[in-house]
Parts: sequence; C-alpha cells; structure tokens
Amino acid sequence: MAKKILLNAFEMITPGHQTFGVWRHSDDRSLDYMTADYWVDLARTLERGFFDGIFLADALGVYDVFAGGPETALRAGTQFPSGDPFVLVPMMAAATKNLCFGITGNLSYENPVPFARRMSTLDHLTGGRVAWNVVTGYLDSAAKGAGKGGQRSHDTRYDVAEEYMDVMYGLWEGWDDDALVANREAGILVDPDKVRAVHHDGDQLKVDAIHLCNPSPQRVPVLYQAGASTRGRAFGAKHGECIFLNAMRLEDLIPMVADIRSQVEASGRSRDDVKIFTTMTVVTGSTDAEAEAKLAEYEELVILEGQLASLSGLLGIDMASLDMDAPIKHGNVEGVQGVMDSIAGPGEDRWTLRDLARRMGVGGPTPRIVGSPRKVADELERWVTEGDIDGFNLVRAHSDSMRDFVDLVVPEMQNRGIFKHEYQPGTYRNKMFAQGPHLRDPHPASAYRSR
Amino acid sequence: MAKKILLNAFEMITPGHQTFGVWRHSDDRSLDYMTADYWVDLARTLERGFFDGIFLADALGVYDVFAGGPETALRAGTQFPSGDPFVLVPMMAAATKNLCFGITGNLSYENPVPFARRMSTLDHLTGGRVAWNVVTGYLDSAAKGAGKGGQRSHDTRYDVAEEYMDVMYGLWEGWDDDALVANREAGILVDPDKVRAVHHDGDQLKVDAIHLCNPSPQRVPVLYQAGASTRGRAFGAKHGECIFLNAMRLEDLIPMVADIRSQVEASGRSRDDVKIFTTMTVVTGSTDAEAEAKLAEYEELVILEGQLASLSGLLGIDMASLDMDAPIKHGNVEGVQGVMDSIAGPGEDRWTLRDLARRMGVGGPTPRIVGSPRKVADELERWVTEGDIDGFNLVRAHSDSMRDFVDLVVPEMQNRGIFKHEYQPGTYRNKMFAQGPHLRDPHPASAYRSR
Repeated sequence: MAKKILLNAFEMITPGHQTFGVWRHSDDRSLDYMTADYWVDLARTLERGFFDGIFLADALGVYDVFAGGPETALRAGTQFPSGDPFVLVPMMAAATKNLCFGITGNLSYENPVPFARRMSTLDHLTGGRVAWNVVTGYLDSAAKGAGKGGQRSHDTRYDVAEEYMDVMYGLWEGWDDDALVANREAGILVDPDKVRAVHHDGDQLKVDAIHLCNPSPQRVPVLYQAGASTRGRAFGAKHGECIFLNAMRLEDLIPMVADIRSQVEASGRSRDDVKIFTTMTVVTGSTDAEAEAKLAEYEELVILEGQLASLSGLLGIDMASLDMDAPIKHGNVEGVQGVMDSIAGPGEDRWTLRDLARRMGVGGPTPRIVGSPRKVADELERWVTEGDIDGFNLVRAHSDSMRDFVDLVVPEMQNRGIFKHEYQPGTYRNKMFAQGPHLRDPHPASAYRSR
Repeated sequence: MAKKILLNAFEMITPGHQTFGVWRHSDDRSLDYMTADYWVDLARTLERGFFDGIFLADALGVYDVFAGGPETALRAGTQFPSGDPFVLVPMMAAATKNLCFGITGNLSYENPVPFARRMSTLDHLTGGRVAWNVVTGYLDSAAKGAGKGGQRSHDTRYDVAEEYMDVMYGLWEGWDDDALVANREAGILVDPDKVRAVHHDGDQLKVDAIHLCNPSPQRVPVLYQAGASTRGRAFGAKHGECIFLNAMRLEDLIPMVADIRSQVEASGRSRDDVKIFTTMTVVTGSTDAEAEAKLAEYEELVILEGQLASLSGLLGIDMASLDMDAPIKHGNVEGVQGVMDSIAGPGEDRWTLRDLARRMGVGGPTPRIVGSPRKVADELERWVTEGDIDGFNLVRAHSDSMRDFVDLVVPEMQNRGIFKHEYQPGTYRNKMFAQGPHLRDPHPASAYRSR
C-alpha cells in the first residue's frame, strides 16, 4: 500500500500570508479575513477534501526592517493586519468534526500558566484536534511591542524554550487520569493527591503553579516545530512530533530530512516518530495551460516591495538600499546572496533583486507546482518519495487555492492511492500516529506522567 | 416608561463559580463545564430570555490560603478547575446573534499588544458584542504561577493599570476609520499615514508598537470595572462604562452607588454615563415554597470549607485555624469581622464562622432572593429603584438557575414593563447606551482618536 500523503493548509489570519497583492484580484476574498464566514467556509472545504489540518502561522510584530519602517508592509499587506488564532479556531472547530488545527504560539510572549490553560481549553472543546507550533519569534518589532529593546539572542531563545517545554509538560501531565474524581457522595471534585504542582526555578523561567485545567483529550497538544538552525533542529528532534521544513529544491530538502530523522533516532525515538512536512505552493487548473494562466494573473498583481519587506524582516537586512536591477552576485550582501542561492540555485549568478522578488511573488520563498491535477500529483508524489517526507503545508496563492486543490488534486491523489478517503478516528495525534491520544515514551513529555 | 433592568449571567468557566458543592446535585450539569454544548445551551437560553450579556469571571491561580494549601479548593471545586474564556466565547457567539460577552482579562498577566489583538479579533468576529472586565488580580498564587514572589501592592497594580489603559487606548484608537483603504488599483491595503504607533515609555510599562489589527466594530470593547477600594472606584469612575458592585444589603449599596455616580460626574462625564450592576443570587420556582425547597436542596450539598477557601483567598487570611463554632465577634480577627459585618449586618454578634459559611453556601457573599417570580421581580425592582442601579449580575446556584430565571422571572418582569421584549440593534455599546459603537468624549479613550 502506497504511503498516504498528509496535507495541511498553511494559513495565517491575515489577507496576505506569503503572497502580497493578490488581495487585489477580483475573485479574491482574502480581505474577508476578519469574518467568521471566510474561515468557516475554508474549514468546511478542507474537511470535504480530507485535509489533515489547517496550520496557522502568526507574527506579533510588523515587518519594519525594509526602508527602516513599517510603511511598505502596511501598504502591501505583508502579514498585516492580523488576528488572533485562538479566537478563530473555536469557530472553525464548531463547524467541522475531523479537521485539526495547528496554532503558532510564541513562547516569548505568553505566560506559561494561562497559555497552558488556553491550549487545554481548546483541546477539550475541539475533542483533541489541536497542535501547537512552538516558536520563539524572529521579529524585533514584536520584542519592542513587549517592552524589550529587541529580541534575545537566538541561543538564549532556545534556552528559554527548553525550560518552557519542561514547564508545559509539568502542567499538562501534572494531573493523573483519575484526578477529577467527582465523587458526589464524598464531596470530592478533584483529589489533591493526584495533582502535581510545577516548581520550576530555572535560569530563564520561574513558575510555581498547578495546571488550572483538568487533562484534555491529548493533554499535550501535537507538537510542531519548524526551526531550521542547528539548535532549532536539535530542539525539533527532541520535542517535535511534526517537523515543518522549507526548501526551494528537492535536492536541498533531502539532506535536511535525513539529518532530522537521524537526530530523532539519536534521541531514542524511531526515525518515523516524526512526520515531516515541507512547504509547497500549488497553482492548479483543469489543464497545465489553465494553471499557468492563473499564475500569470496572480503575478500581475503581486507587490514586489511587500515581498522584500517580508524577506528583510526575516533576515534582518534592509533591502531597500539595494539596487533592484543589479545582479545580486556582485552586490556582496552576504545574507541576500545566501537566500538567492537557496531560491535561484547556487549556479545562478545573473539574478537581480527584482528577479528574486518576482520569483517569490506568488507563494513566497517556497517551491511551486503549477499545472493540471496530474502534474501536481506527479510532483507531490516525487517529493514525498525522493524527499522521504510525510506531507505538505500548502501555501495559498489566492483565496480559492485550497478549493481548487480539493476539487482537482485530491481526487487525483485518491485515485492513485496516495491520499485517504476517510479520516482516522480520535484525536489529532491518533489520526496521525494511530497510537492513542497521548505522547509516549521516549518522548520527554512522558517523563512527567505519573507512573 | 419604567426603567428597563439590565441583566447579565455572572459565570465562570468552572464547575463552581460562587457556590461550591451543588455540582453534586443529581440534576446539575456544571461538571460538563468543559464542553461546548453546555455553554452553547446556556447562551441560547440567555438569548431566548433577552439577557444583555454573560459576564465571565476568571482567576489565574488557585485558592491556596486556607489551611496553607490548595487541597480544600481542589476537593470542593472552588473555582477549580477552570478554562479560558477566549476559547469559549467564540463558540457561544457563533450560536447567538444579540447576546453580549463580558470577559475578565487580568492585565497583570497579558502582554498588551497580543491582548489588544485578541480582543479586537473577538470584537470583529462577534460583530461588536464584547466587553472587557478590567482586573489586576488578587491571588498570590497567580503571581507565583507567573514567576513572581507574590503580587505587587494594590496601589502599584493600579499604577500599572492606568498605564496599561493608555496603551490599550492608543492601540485600539490608533487607526483612522479609513486607514484600511484596500485600493486595488494603487495596490495599497493600509495607508501608513492613517495608523499611529504607540510609543509608551512609562514607569511600569514600555510598549513601542502598531496595533496589529484593523479597527473592530467597537474599537475599545465595552469596559467593565469592579474595584471596590478607593483607588478602584476612582479608576472605575474614570475608565468604566459599566461598574460592577457587590453589597449584601441594599442600604450598603446605596452610598456606594451615590459615590460612584458623583465621581463619574466629577470626572466630566454624566451620572448616567455608567451602568451600575450589582451581584444577586436568585433561586426561583413557581411558588415561594418551591423556591425555598430548591434552596434547601442546594444548601444540603454545599461544601462549607470550599466557601471558606474562597473567602480566605479573597481576604488573604487563613480561616482554617479559626474555631468554626465560636462567635466571630470574640475572635478578634480583623478582616473576618469586617466581612461578617458586611454579610450578617453590623448589629449581629453571635454568628460563628460556620454560620457565615452557611449563609455564603449558595451564591457566595452575595445578596439572595428566594421565591416566586412575583417576589423576585418585586425585590429586583426595589433594588433598582432604591439603589439607583441599572441591573444585575445574576449568580448561578445550580446549572438550571438561568433557565429558571428565563422561564419564570423574565415574563413577570416583561409584564411589568421593567424588562425588554427585544434587543436593541448594533454593538454591545449601542445596545446599552444607544450612542453608536464607539467611546465618545469625555471618556479618556476618545482623546486617542484622530481628530
């Protein structure tokens, strides 16, 4: 039996997540991003197409590196404005039964005790359909919003993250399964002997608390991690159940996947104990020509500066001062050259910044498949097989992208036996790993469970 | 035309909000508190009964002062376990059209930028049906959960609160109405000249940010405030649109209301620019006898220690060491005596701690009306008229309390012309004040609007 491909819609509660300017398209609905209908429609479409989940990115600041201010990002709609995923997910969950929800939660700005409770509440109310995408943030503007001069160093952020995870595991696993006894005769609701407090006194974090919420179906939400750095990969290999990667070319992805699977194995888990997703932008139509025509329409509308504002924010390099039409290879801007190598390919040396922005225009710095369902399915299959990955986080090019995929590509994948015809029962974790609702040995969270 | 009484259900996402132990009753459903159905049913019942809102209390710690630990609160279910209101409200909102939602948000534990966005998102998605109950917290256990040795002093908390409000107004009012231009031709989504950043560099708080979310229907959610101290009342008179009080006896309420209305007037607003709610526990049935029989059933089930755990936490005084059966007047425990005066009345001097706990058993330290719809309506009318208040936050005694009230008391009030037969249109603020969706001069928030 062929391996079944996993699929998430990669979204953000904003008009432009990775593509900036297609909100100008006459059929695009992404300006409705702050209405329940828009998201409920999307959730129902995804469930109709047996998508595993909707994966919600988030950012708590603005992209204000480009030209030294946020103006470009505001004009183009570079992940701006945005809404809070915790408010939207309950509405999407109420309208669906099986679709799962990955929520980006930035541990730099969330107090552990209320955050743990918020996640538990959502896991309860969705019947265990929640994942947490653990991030530490990358925007200085978010740190300044929170009263800090700027972000802490990359390594310090991971030090905090390690302690934070310990605290969260302690909270989420701190209740025995039978702690909520609800003994009406004896008048005992919760047995205090079956609830363990967290007493964490670390270098980065101090927490002294009992988890306020009784255990939710999954206790620990499914854990996503997307760190690409050495430290990030080690963190993901230790904690992550799903790893989310991005590579423009399959040949770049292959060694990343191999490295992660080896690290997972080295940490005592099995190579397949993590599901690996990679980003993919798909533009499809009944025929290759129709798909290409769509892409051309979208490319007409993209706002190149919006894309450069995003890239400048991600890299912390102001690209506004660079010549848009000079070949980048001769510009000697180290960070930009690296990105160009990853996007255009290391052999390429004539690309200008304009070429780079154009290539990223639809879908951002992600690989792209444009074509008929057959061509799309061929390519997805090739990435899964050769890349040794489990699935994709599909980027929207237009607000209809996911509907197009569901209507056209899903049936093609089902016919090939590489995509499911029905959902697995139970929680998100069980749907994905078929091992019940909880994290198990040797995942570090399991050490916090009562024996 | 008689004044129409305003009504909120005073709830918390927990099995026992003010009454601890009635979860043991065979008909009580409050152990379903962590299911969507329970809350959606309640929301629909309240909307059927034209309730203005559901007012959700919250606490981010456990009641661990009594007997020096949280055990009693866990056993009795003293506001424990609990869930996050931001996850539940979207589900209740999706199931209703007019019911509004007051959410307690503790500014000591919320980063202003993401909190402002969360509120705006909720206000967007509910069509402007949200209020924020501004609190600074009172539990040391919550402060310890957040890595602090204990709470900051009462006055410092209000210093923080003043700065916090300035920041929130700056964020929520920082966008001009027409800042989201969405000009498809020019490719301008947001006009940066119409968005003002907050640069707040105060003693208590530093924030440098743009509000991430475009203006929601109300911009600033309706503001509730409940501080009873001198500082709290001044804060409420300045910022609050709805003031939430608690007094066991009408004669104690009257001067509190007069003081607040005078302070509101002194701050430049009109005496009626605030709506004043007081707590009330109502147990009703077709006849007085039926209502009294219900109360007796509930009183059988209450767990007195759970009530003392709550009171100990509120006062910061461990009552476990006190003799349950000695008259309190002779105990010389200052804080407890004050509470007893307020509950039993100043003339009372034979009450024991057990008497006090029993009186608080059903409904907590709140006034109570037990009787037929006629008796209840008589009393509510008397409190409104003599107390110069606008409405009530009704405390649940049993999970059916609100349904009983809607089925029995609401028709009686409607027949008397003291309760509405239909909702006013528009946002929460407009439903209550009929002055449009936004805060207006001379409320301090209006100073942050563009002129």
